[in-house]
Amino acid sequence: MEITSVNNKLVKELAKLNESKYRKLTNTFIVEGKHLVTEARNNNLIIDAYSIEYKEGYIKVSEEVMKKICNTDTVVTEIAVCKMLEKKELSNKILILDSIQDPGNLGTLLRTAKAFNFNTVVLGLNTVDLYNPKVIRSSQGAIFKLNIFRDNLLEFIPSISKEYKVYGTNVRNGIDIKMLEKCDKIAIVLGNEGNGISKEVDSLLNENIYIKLDNTESLNVAIAGAIIMYEINK
Amino acid sequence: MEITSVNNKLVKELAKLNESKYRKLTNTFIVEGKHLVTEARNNNLIIDAYSIEYKEGYIKVSEEVMKKICNTDTVVTEIAVCKMLEKKELSNKILILDSIQDPGNLGTLLRTAKAFNFNTVVLGLNTVDLYNPKVIRSSQGAIFKLNIFRDNLLEFIPSISKEYKVYGTNVRNGIDIKMLEKCDKIAIVLGNEGNGISKEVDSLLNENIYIKLDNTESLNVAIAGAIIMYEINK
Repeated sequence: MEITSVNNKLVKELAKLNESKYRKLTNTFIVEGKHLVTEARNNNLIIDAYSIEYKEGYIKVSEEVMKKICNTDTVVTEIAVCKMLEKKELSNKILILDSIQDPGNLGTLLRTAKAFNFNTVVLGLNTVDLYNPKVIRSSQGAIFKLNIFRDNLLEFIPSISKEYKVYGTNVRNGIDIKMLEKCDKIAIVLGNEGNGISKEVDSLLNENIYIKLDNTESLNVAIAGAIIMYEINK
Repeated sequence: MEITSVNNKLVKELAKLNESKYRKLTNTFIVEGKHLVTEARNNNLIIDAYSIEYKEGYIKVSEEVMKKICNTDTVVTEIAVCKMLEKKELSNKILILDSIQDPGNLGTLLRTAKAFNFNTVVLGLNTVDLYNPKVIRSSQGAIFKLNIFRDNLLEFIPSISKEYKVYGTNVRNGIDIKMLEKCDKIAIVLGNEGNGISKEVDSLLNENIYIKLDNTESLNVAIAGAIIMYEINK
């Protein structure tokens, strides 16, 4: 059997998963491409898999149907519908993201967090949807290897602040990241691309870290986050 | 006078500047938004400026016309047509980009290069077009503050290798970036997102630097480049 009609009821439902609303309603999301489908399978998250080739364990669909589901012009040979991730135990290094808006930035931060052993990432309520296809693509599979969950930061930060040293990040104020003393349990908070950390979250933080620049330039948030995580992980 | 018709001949010509081919033909490109227009003006690069408001020194256009020119749904209030940048003298720190494909990665690398004083950036012939609107947006004005030019790397690298220490970057081989000795004149080469540095370029390089990771993850090229430039600039 092969699904060839873009008007098939199932195809229409799958295409709806491009919208955050339908992902939340169904508690599912789509991953695209062999690499991500394999990662999802290793994590027992797959509900159904679809391929443009006849393949065991996959429902065969036409190329046209695949393009309709993925809402993209690039040809993907396989996709999978997955269950959303569950919250796990906190790791010793935590990345907290307050209002990150750009899906590419979030995906890149997740990939970098994994590389530097920030194995828990907490998304504030205003941070872009984790299951946005662009986030998943740019995370390069890191979403399956991290403990990621969404929480109200005004509750989450106080809940860990006895156990963890929680640092804000600020363009020019605070401790130079090169000078930061090692500690076992550490969390860093990154803010919005344009506006930085929100006032409410900032009021919960005692100390900031920053990257010293000898000019008046600024860094993209994914770049700043990467340098900070790299220094802490050294 | 105000241009209100999207069928106006000038508007059609401006809209063509979204394509690399027409930018090269005319030796011009478009920058969007007040911040970038101001930077372009400070660098005497503006040929004509357009605004949706009546403003001295600007040609007034309707919102519809502005959207047509910018080929985007977000409303930009002003744009400028600029002359392309000219090659300047080489700086002591040089970033060399061999086949970077993603416009966002190139823009972010330019912004980061400026922050860490890599004031010359050389684009290999296969690197994405500098004047792509996405590159310009994500560079956040850095293009106006850097010496950027395109060159055949198989000629450029040998031309500087007596004066500069030229390092390749490789996922796991070479000198740990933390251990790199300081030198006055240094160039680093970053490769393609999927395939790294091309064989031909690699054969010109004597040494690689890398970022030590204690797991099997990898980093996005803009992230890896940022950490390397940060360490060298420290």
